[in-house]
Amino acid sequence: MTKLLSQIHTITDGNIATPKGFHADGQHVGLKHKSKDLGWIYSDVPASVAGVFTTNQVQAAPVQLDKNVIQNGQIQAIIVNSGNANAVTGAIGLTHAKTMQAVTAAQLNISPELVAVSSTGVIGQPLPIDTVTAGIAQLYIDGDADSFAEAIKTTDTVKKTITIQSEIAGHQVTMSGVAKGSGMIHPNMATMLGFITTDVSITPSLLQTALSADVETSFNQITIDGDTSTNDTVLVMANGGAQNPPITTENDDFSQFKVMLNTVTTALAIAIANDGEGATKLLTVTVNHAQDGLGARMVAKKIVGSSLVKTAMFGQDPNWGRIIAAIGASGVNINPDIIDISLNGITVMSAGAPIDFDAQQMSEQLAQHDIDIAIDLHDGTATGQAWGSDLTYGYVKINALYTT
Amino acid sequence: MTKLLSQIHTITDGNIATPKGFHADGQHVGLKHKSKDLGWIYSDVPASVAGVFTTNQVQAAPVQLDKNVIQNGQIQAIIVNSGNANAVTGAIGLTHAKTMQAVTAAQLNISPELVAVSSTGVIGQPLPIDTVTAGIAQLYIDGDADSFAEAIKTTDTVKKTITIQSEIAGHQVTMSGVAKGSGMIHPNMATMLGFITTDVSITPSLLQTALSADVETSFNQITIDGDTSTNDTVLVMANGGAQNPPITTENDDFSQFKVMLNTVTTALAIAIANDGEGATKLLTVTVNHAQDGLGARMVAKKIVGSSLVKTAMFGQDPNWGRIIAAIGASGVNINPDIIDISLNGITVMSAGAPIDFDAQQMSEQLAQHDIDIAIDLHDGTATGQAWGSDLTYGYVKINALYTT
Repeated sequence: MTKLLSQIHTITDGNIATPKGFHADGQHVGLKHKSKDLGWIYSDVPASVAGVFTTNQVQAAPVQLDKNVIQNGQIQAIIVNSGNANAVTGAIGLTHAKTMQAVTAAQLNISPELVAVSSTGVIGQPLPIDTVTAGIAQLYIDGDADSFAEAIKTTDTVKKTITIQSEIAGHQVTMSGVAKGSGMIHPNMATMLGFITTDVSITPSLLQTALSADVETSFNQITIDGDTSTNDTVLVMANGGAQNPPITTENDDFSQFKVMLNTVTTALAIAIANDGEGATKLLTVTVNHAQDGLGARMVAKKIVGSSLVKTAMFGQDPNWGRIIAAIGASGVNINPDIIDISLNGITVMSAGAPIDFDAQQMSEQLAQHDIDIAIDLHDGTATGQAWGSDLTYGYVKINALYTT
Repeated sequence: MTKLLSQIHTITDGNIATPKGFHADGQHVGLKHKSKDLGWIYSDVPASVAGVFTTNQVQAAPVQLDKNVIQNGQIQAIIVNSGNANAVTGAIGLTHAKTMQAVTAAQLNISPELVAVSSTGVIGQPLPIDTVTAGIAQLYIDGDADSFAEAIKTTDTVKKTITIQSEIAGHQVTMSGVAKGSGMIHPNMATMLGFITTDVSITPSLLQTALSADVETSFNQITIDGDTSTNDTVLVMANGGAQNPPITTENDDFSQFKVMLNTVTTALAIAIANDGEGATKLLTVTVNHAQDGLGARMVAKKIVGSSLVKTAMFGQDPNWGRIIAAIGASGVNINPDIIDISLNGITVMSAGAPIDFDAQQMSEQLAQHDIDIAIDLHDGTATGQAWGSDLTYGYVKINALYTT
């Protein structure tokens, strides 16, 4: 018997330190030319931790470090720099990541194994460790928590945050998330970072269960072209400050927690897609009536990752032939003769055949910023979504002129 | 005991009708605004045929037709139009393809089942069949054979042909190939077509064996981003006009034939990569010391298909971090700590760590049209290659403004 879920509402002026017992700061310490480039999150007490990391066989030093750190089930702080990914820097990379961890721990007077480390920026250049360690000394526990979201940006044009509140077992609980990534679709730095804090009390193993399942429908649905990063990291800290009865089994409280988590991760995922490098449009692909959720998500991801679909949307061109071609190449078993396709509600293909549409009406729709591509496979009951951006001159410019 | 292979030389003024007993023509019949848009190849006698087709589940009508046609092992003619792909056009599509086949057969006074049909162009618009059938009446058996390569172009900027000669069992044999596709890397029409004629005498089954193996290292190594076409087709006709002892077993003559075939297919594959939509550069990726050929090809393909690598090369930016990230995400088991990477002969990464290089020298190399990316996996003895083009403003322009 499932009870009704408690309402979830957004705290518009929240930040990563809004959940009880969390603190954060972000500063400019000299890794980038001018903008903020170092930040941390700190919890008054050790928090349950869960993480998901890149599946790339080439893994940045901080990813290697964090995979060990979260084995203990608890962390108390996360230190993050932008401007340098500390990836593919040889053996010195792990030494640098450990130095970041140790210096942060000393500054906060906690054990090093309670500190996770993240880096994002250019690959293959040694981390300027002296700049980082000097910078850590400049961070405050009760700093400007809003600045953390700024400090982790690279080519992001906006900061990406969301804070929500709800109730679990009669206790008010808060969850906040921050992410960076200007185009997971075609990652520039090839890095997406996400950090989520909550004052919910939950065991590390259930936290990991929730996160691992969640990313399949949220962040992973904006990982489109297989250009998997060396640094991708999502960490969740849950410090129990809300004093709800600890979530230790997959009960109704756990269900409520999963819905909160999905609200935060989906909002951040869409924010990343919306801020794709050079993007002029947000593409949302919804696949209905698939045989299973995985298949629905695969089809959605294939469409939103197609360079041909992305350039067509940039050109406001209803070239749906590229969409059906992407569906056919998705690796999911489909029957092209029964599929429908619509663009912002206008049907362009029905039962596998072209449908005449009003060109003027279509033109108005494709001029919108938000483009919804809807597919009906007529083959089951499952649904899946994926998000991305269009492929533009701006994307080429940003990525052609990055390191030099 | 393998004998030395006979020398292979190129016939610079050859065309698809140079092998004995072949004829071809190409005309403008009104499917496109101005340029040639209909052509055929005809053999004096039925020829052994082999074909490979798109793996997309959405298959254009002519692909569906040809898959049946080649089951008989012989064809005598191929009719090809550009300007319309006859794909995703509903049930009428197959009717139109069969009409093309029947009208061509009548015109040539041969049986319809000896005629293969190919189409390339926009997806989802009904083929203007009256224009096509009226056009077929305008084709000549001994027409301008050079025009065939023109008639199958879409956004291709140059025609792609090669003709070679060699000896098999003391007989002079000729093989000629023509292809279209302006960027299989990111196909625009999502179509690559290839037609190869030869006067070698060989059984249909050995011809198919040779072709199926060959495309794995040639055309498939420019099929990079998974945007598999609805129309991709490669057909080989071998009419026996050279009067060599028929190749009926995998003997030395067969080996010689395979080398000839690979010479033609690789040249056409590279020509397609070199004419990629909006391309300013030809990228050749060579992977050495892999555990097996498939792994080597997968790594090479992943690199040359990475939007990040392609934009970096357009920007003449030695951003090798994107190359190692692509290697790590290739799905092939690798050890990043022992890999070397070089760009046009300049080592940028050695044993997994950055190598200082002369910036001026690198800058001169990346200004070249031909960029060679060489990877040493230090993990075996196999080699693989892939070819592609850079990702440019021109690519976005061409694909943003296609149908409208």
